[in-house]
Amino acid sequence: MRELVLAARPRGVPQATDFELREAAERAPGDGELLVRNVYVSVDPYMRSRMTGVRTYVDGYELGQPVDGGAVGRVVTSGDPGFREGDWVLSRLGWRDGGIVRAASARRLDPDVAPPSTALGVLGMPGLTAWVGLVDIGRVEAGETIYVSGAAGAVGSAAAQIAKLKGLHVIGSAGTPEKVEWLRSLGIEAFDYRETEAAEALADGIDVYFDNVGGAQLEASLAALRPFGRVVACGAISRYNDERAEPGPRNLFLMVTKRLRLQGFIVSDHDDRYRDFLAEVAPWVRDGSLRYRETIVEGLERAPEAFAGLFRGDNVGKMLVRVGPD
Amino acid sequence: MRELVLAARPRGVPQATDFELREAAERAPGDGELLVRNVYVSVDPYMRSRMTGVRTYVDGYELGQPVDGGAVGRVVTSGDPGFREGDWVLSRLGWRDGGIVRAASARRLDPDVAPPSTALGVLGMPGLTAWVGLVDIGRVEAGETIYVSGAAGAVGSAAAQIAKLKGLHVIGSAGTPEKVEWLRSLGIEAFDYRETEAAEALADGIDVYFDNVGGAQLEASLAALRPFGRVVACGAISRYNDERAEPGPRNLFLMVTKRLRLQGFIVSDHDDRYRDFLAEVAPWVRDGSLRYRETIVEGLERAPEAFAGLFRGDNVGKMLVRVGPD
Repeated sequence: MRELVLAARPRGVPQATDFELREAAERAPGDGELLVRNVYVSVDPYMRSRMTGVRTYVDGYELGQPVDGGAVGRVVTSGDPGFREGDWVLSRLGWRDGGIVRAASARRLDPDVAPPSTALGVLGMPGLTAWVGLVDIGRVEAGETIYVSGAAGAVGSAAAQIAKLKGLHVIGSAGTPEKVEWLRSLGIEAFDYRETEAAEALADGIDVYFDNVGGAQLEASLAALRPFGRVVACGAISRYNDERAEPGPRNLFLMVTKRLRLQGFIVSDHDDRYRDFLAEVAPWVRDGSLRYRETIVEGLERAPEAFAGLFRGDNVGKMLVRVGPD
Repeated sequence: MRELVLAARPRGVPQATDFELREAAERAPGDGELLVRNVYVSVDPYMRSRMTGVRTYVDGYELGQPVDGGAVGRVVTSGDPGFREGDWVLSRLGWRDGGIVRAASARRLDPDVAPPSTALGVLGMPGLTAWVGLVDIGRVEAGETIYVSGAAGAVGSAAAQIAKLKGLHVIGSAGTPEKVEWLRSLGIEAFDYRETEAAEALADGIDVYFDNVGGAQLEASLAALRPFGRVVACGAISRYNDERAEPGPRNLFLMVTKRLRLQGFIVSDHDDRYRDFLAEVAPWVRDGSLRYRETIVEGLERAPEAFAGLFRGDNVGKMLVRVGPD
């Protein structure tokens, strides 16, 4: 089994040469362990900051160590009575062909309930991020208007649709005509931020801004927010590859005059909300009222390329790397 | 009786020529009205934004109209059974020698309980601002560390001391050695922001930042805040005279990684908290555990000068203009 290790700390957009594919030692699982082969491994924007080596809310990746992260795969050999060969599992194995997982840290997935890949997307971390951001951080209410940037991404497309299902008027932005088309087909009022100024698209005002991108979209949203508006500060993908810190919004003082609340959050603080999230959102996914898309890149060796693609906006919906057959 | 009217919209720091002193028409009070002569009139930083003519949370001042605002004075003639000649009252008469006040909008002050001027400061709008900012917006808790910028001002000196009385460790900044000395005499860990970098003064970390000044102090505070920290966005006196919008903090994205909450507020939304505020704070003022200072400029004609002085930091504590004898 192979694994990708961090070979150099990326400067700007990550390059293929920042990673190295190597053979990993193999062993049989011990008691309470599983040997898993991965089918899908996840690339997510938050991984970029772990590559800088600066401790933030998660430990940075060490040079020469495997890039861990979300992965979905199947049990090859089980050393735990709770799992059987062939079971689908969600683990933190990351950018590898597979490896040893502690059974206590694995989650078994039922492929009859939802496609296993959704455990990395709409029913996994990105979906929970969207739901917690709306419900617990933004405290959105039916009838409000919300703007979601990066609305065709994994988190954004879930946030935009969940907001709509909760009775909000939803405006979403994305960076290609194809993405805008998809969002419109979902009933989202969508615009291409490369073609249309956010100030224009948001001219009628918003109550909540779900921020996935930062930068100019945040500044435009501060201007468009109504009194007592909220900013759900989820991510800033436009900024993750900045080599130096760029200035913040020139109109931040509007948070005083408009009594705005800007609040950042990290989904891993909210794992206790997973059941509530699933209870509300899984039925919507099953009955088709909440749609999801996946952009799948084939081959473990292409994980760095898929990852870099997140920052170019190559993905529609969730970006995944397929590393093996079902 | 004279009044000051807005003669021109200030550009940058307000100048004497932006205002004009003129004679006001006089009349006797009708039913439910009071004729009041002012003793103290208030100059407050929030008045600066009203002078730009842009509607924010309060209407802008009209050109050629008197500059209204807080004032404390005495009843000359009462047309209301609830007030007698000689009563001390708080009104919104603003920068005038006096005038007609609706009795329903006046608050009678008992000079035996507290000096009437405190109704414009520690027991008035600035004190309520400090208390609401700490209690309702910052939700401060004993044992936390708070940084208060502009800590020798009317709001800041109340916020710093109330925080200390509530069991917080308090760091405060001000812009002269005299102010720093005063703050230290109150038990505040104070520094002169002209001499010491905030990054250095806050190196041990803070839980809450009570922002009165914006700009560099906000950026340094974002860097110093601990996870789940809060910014009480109260004012930005360093920025009110900017002729163009300056960039915001370069490190605003820390609100995500540290899960910060930044929240703006306007005290007039919280008038319903006045009784609770007074119940907690007035006893501290009476028994001397909460100190206040006033910087008093003599003469209505000097109100513009006193006002401009706020932005130079001329005041220690509350800046007042005395326009008549007690």
